[in-house]
Amino acid sequence: MESLKLTDLRSALIRQEETIIFAMIERAQFCHNPPIYEPGAIAIPDFDGSFSDYLLQQTEHIHARVRRYTSPDEHAFFGDLPDPILPSLAYSARILDTDINVNDRIRQIYQANILPAICPPGDDGHYGSSATCDVACLQALSKRIHYGKYVAECKYQEEAGPYTELVVSDDRAGILDRLTKPEVEDAVLERVRHKAAAYGRDIAEESAGGSDLDPTAIQTMYRDYIIPLTKDVEIDYLMLRAHT
Amino acid sequence: MESLKLTDLRSALIRQEETIIFAMIERAQFCHNPPIYEPGAIAIPDFDGSFSDYLLQQTEHIHARVRRYTSPDEHAFFGDLPDPILPSLAYSARILDTDINVNDRIRQIYQANILPAICPPGDDGHYGSSATCDVACLQALSKRIHYGKYVAECKYQEEAGPYTELVVSDDRAGILDRLTKPEVEDAVLERVRHKAAAYGRDIAEESAGGSDLDPTAIQTMYRDYIIPLTKDVEIDYLMLRAHT
Repeated sequence: MESLKLTDLRSALIRQEETIIFAMIERAQFCHNPPIYEPGAIAIPDFDGSFSDYLLQQTEHIHARVRRYTSPDEHAFFGDLPDPILPSLAYSARILDTDINVNDRIRQIYQANILPAICPPGDDGHYGSSATCDVACLQALSKRIHYGKYVAECKYQEEAGPYTELVVSDDRAGILDRLTKPEVEDAVLERVRHKAAAYGRDIAEESAGGSDLDPTAIQTMYRDYIIPLTKDVEIDYLMLRAHT
Repeated sequence: MESLKLTDLRSALIRQEETIIFAMIERAQFCHNPPIYEPGAIAIPDFDGSFSDYLLQQTEHIHARVRRYTSPDEHAFFGDLPDPILPSLAYSARILDTDINVNDRIRQIYQANILPAICPPGDDGHYGSSATCDVACLQALSKRIHYGKYVAECKYQEEAGPYTELVVSDDRAGILDRLTKPEVEDAVLERVRHKAAAYGRDIAEESAGGSDLDPTAIQTMYRDYIIPLTKDVEIDYLMLRAHT
């Protein structure tokens, strides 16, 4: 494995905050629109899932054809993807090749917890626009959370001995404790709240009382979902890593 | 035609500035990557165009199936779209149903003029990510520019007599002069520069000298391309409108 430093990952992780916040601001233009998340509420020929899932799955098919999911950074939400039509690229081995994928949980949490917090309630009929935004939100969340693999690889390289000991004892709580840095998490939470407020300010003024994104909702999303899911990915990764 | 007031369109037009700027900031993370715009540079089976065009055309196929292009707000870049798999929606007649579509020019200008101004030069190999951002940029530009149809309908309703006279004399320069409001354009240009600076500020700090979006590039894009193309759409619309 190549040597990986947390400082090398830092700018990528921080830059992904913008991608996530921009995507959420775009989604928050539209109401929650529950029917697009109910399988069967909008009948789609030859597809059992919801309207939003259909758009995501179809988009993943295109992206698979242009080899998106051959990148170790990218994780698909759906299986049965078509083969790439482009030749494969060689990626340097910076992380272990694992099948860790928490996208089912991300999608479930996005629909059950995140959407109701960021969108105005109700149904405005903007189903296509909403579902298109969902694709961007989910892909941004998935990329950020699975970046935990890189973070875990760094932490392992820095402290292989202690992590190996915890893994051998199957001590997930001990691993969680060791990889948790409260001061780093506090800084992330403060930064994303600040960014969401800054990026949403003009929109709030323009919409004159209409829908706009609550900065606290972004902070809560990071605190309750993005950071814990990232740590789950880190733990899963470390459990495998220490056994290699 | 329903009565349409400029004040009703104002918030939609201003809100679209965020969508455009967010999309451009996302694209500016990646280098220009010229090969994705050269037909044949990346060989795609059964497709003659460029890699970026392929991703756009494939995305349009999905969106056509979920009836995106049945909305009078939306214009496709490519023809031969599949039929919607969902039943049609009824849209109220707020504008004339025309085949005015300047997407070919938008795509040409985006590739030739806008991309080189917003992206770092060179090739970073992030072809899929760049082309995915291109889809969002082009769709946002197209929606904003074709909103000129609504703007023109408003202006026609406010001053049907003078516009009809100019149309009958085939006086496009006279129409351009009548619909141009320099103080409104100045306000737009100032606002988008301000927004691009505000939204790009944290990113510039984070990237520590790396790529970030030049607010002047956004202002120039509005001044040289978005506003003139919108006015072309307005004139084309008025030429048809005054004859109905």
